[in-house]
Amino acid sequence: MPRQVTAFSNATVKRLRSLRDKKHRKSEGLFLAEGLRIIAEARDSGRLPDIIAFSPEGAKHPLAAEIIAASEAAGGEAIETTPDILSKMSGKDNPQMLLGAYRQPDTALERIDRSTAPLWIVAQALRDPGNIGTILRTGDAVGAGGLILIDDCADPFSVEAVRASMGALFTQQIATARWEEFLPWLRSGPGQLAGTSLKATHDYLEAEYKQPCFLLIGNEQQGLPAAYEAECDLLVKIPMAGRADSLNAAVAAAVMAFAIRASWR
Amino acid sequence: MPRQVTAFSNATVKRLRSLRDKKHRKSEGLFLAEGLRIIAEARDSGRLPDIIAFSPEGAKHPLAAEIIAASEAAGGEAIETTPDILSKMSGKDNPQMLLGAYRQPDTALERIDRSTAPLWIVAQALRDPGNIGTILRTGDAVGAGGLILIDDCADPFSVEAVRASMGALFTQQIATARWEEFLPWLRSGPGQLAGTSLKATHDYLEAEYKQPCFLLIGNEQQGLPAAYEAECDLLVKIPMAGRADSLNAAVAAAVMAFAIRASWR
Repeated sequence: MPRQVTAFSNATVKRLRSLRDKKHRKSEGLFLAEGLRIIAEARDSGRLPDIIAFSPEGAKHPLAAEIIAASEAAGGEAIETTPDILSKMSGKDNPQMLLGAYRQPDTALERIDRSTAPLWIVAQALRDPGNIGTILRTGDAVGAGGLILIDDCADPFSVEAVRASMGALFTQQIATARWEEFLPWLRSGPGQLAGTSLKATHDYLEAEYKQPCFLLIGNEQQGLPAAYEAECDLLVKIPMAGRADSLNAAVAAAVMAFAIRASWR
Repeated sequence: MPRQVTAFSNATVKRLRSLRDKKHRKSEGLFLAEGLRIIAEARDSGRLPDIIAFSPEGAKHPLAAEIIAASEAAGGEAIETTPDILSKMSGKDNPQMLLGAYRQPDTALERIDRSTAPLWIVAQALRDPGNIGTILRTGDAVGAGGLILIDDCADPFSVEAVRASMGALFTQQIATARWEEFLPWLRSGPGQLAGTSLKATHDYLEAEYKQPCFLLIGNEQQGLPAAYEAECDLLVKIPMAGRADSLNAAVAAAVMAFAIRASWR
């Protein structure tokens, strides 16, 4: 049976609230996901929350009730609480009626099995958690295996990234690694490292992409470091028709990923 | 000569600060743009700010100094102020060293000359100003003429949208209209209205896009209303390989816009 919690000072409320901070996500090994859509996506991918919090309104939805019951049956904690407290936990003025705390998966690079997908997205030093979530969502849509985060990226388990991923966080594999770790791992098996560059001569629509393809996306401000570009097996250019010389990082990832997929049809 | 301003209570500081709110942007007819990159982009597009604020550090850059001088010569107001005050005005912890207030362009639909570009992006009820700015940036990159905002969209002149546009706000035309105004305007001249739909049978890569093409993008949560889909001359499907059935709105706009452009090569 779910406990009823109406005090902001309740320990579980405080614990869930603390997961908005990376430090606490790390020490707890948990992260937050909000809303029935994402939480149902997680369940369909075989993931139930360790802790689930919901408003009386939220528990009325049959699918929500089912997931709450399944979470408790699996040993999870369930609390029924107020919209005000849900709002405090999620940091949103209009909170979702359902909030789950999930165990963070192991993000070791060695856990990635590159043979399971033709395309992997590799992002370097992405600062915007929204971009990371959006790239995960795009990865799901193009049939990528997952996202490998290189160097100092924003936390893929932040509330903003989970929200932008629309559930793809649960379906895409995620790894984090330094470039110095990634490169030997990449070269230990098959794989084409493909990056975009203003200096490239290959048009992105005419290049030959090979499976598994590792699509390398650079930092929002600086793009890819020259040394990283130099390691690419393929550098392509997305022609720019206007005044700007770059795209938003999540847009560049999507335009490239869809072009790569189209080239394989 | 720029005035030196160090008081938060200064009238110009308060006026610039107020432009973070839509209500004041509307009554003043002004909006904020931050940072040398965007302000230089504006100047290169023939736009100078009515008011420019900068830190002593910011004015050291020769290009910044040139734009400050040009703004004053054109009758604009220039104030030298502190990073703290710049931070308060932009709402950013790490403010840019340069901030300009620009006159909002007329966004009447009648001002759009469809013959000037092969592609126009039409967005319906977009709620996220970051998506609007990102779509403007993408529009610039694909050679679109501009963005037509239908129904209740976020404000394209908000600080977040301007920031995400990376200057494309100054190079892309912007119009706002109700659907009931847009449709007769569209049908008063040549133009193919193209939308994406899960129900479509045409693959987005195999459709025939005609110039001028009006690419219609739906709201982040609901997508396009059925009645709007019904008005489309062409409905296409972006195949989804994973579990999700939709893309981020700015990503969908980019994947479609680049595919349309590629089809014309």
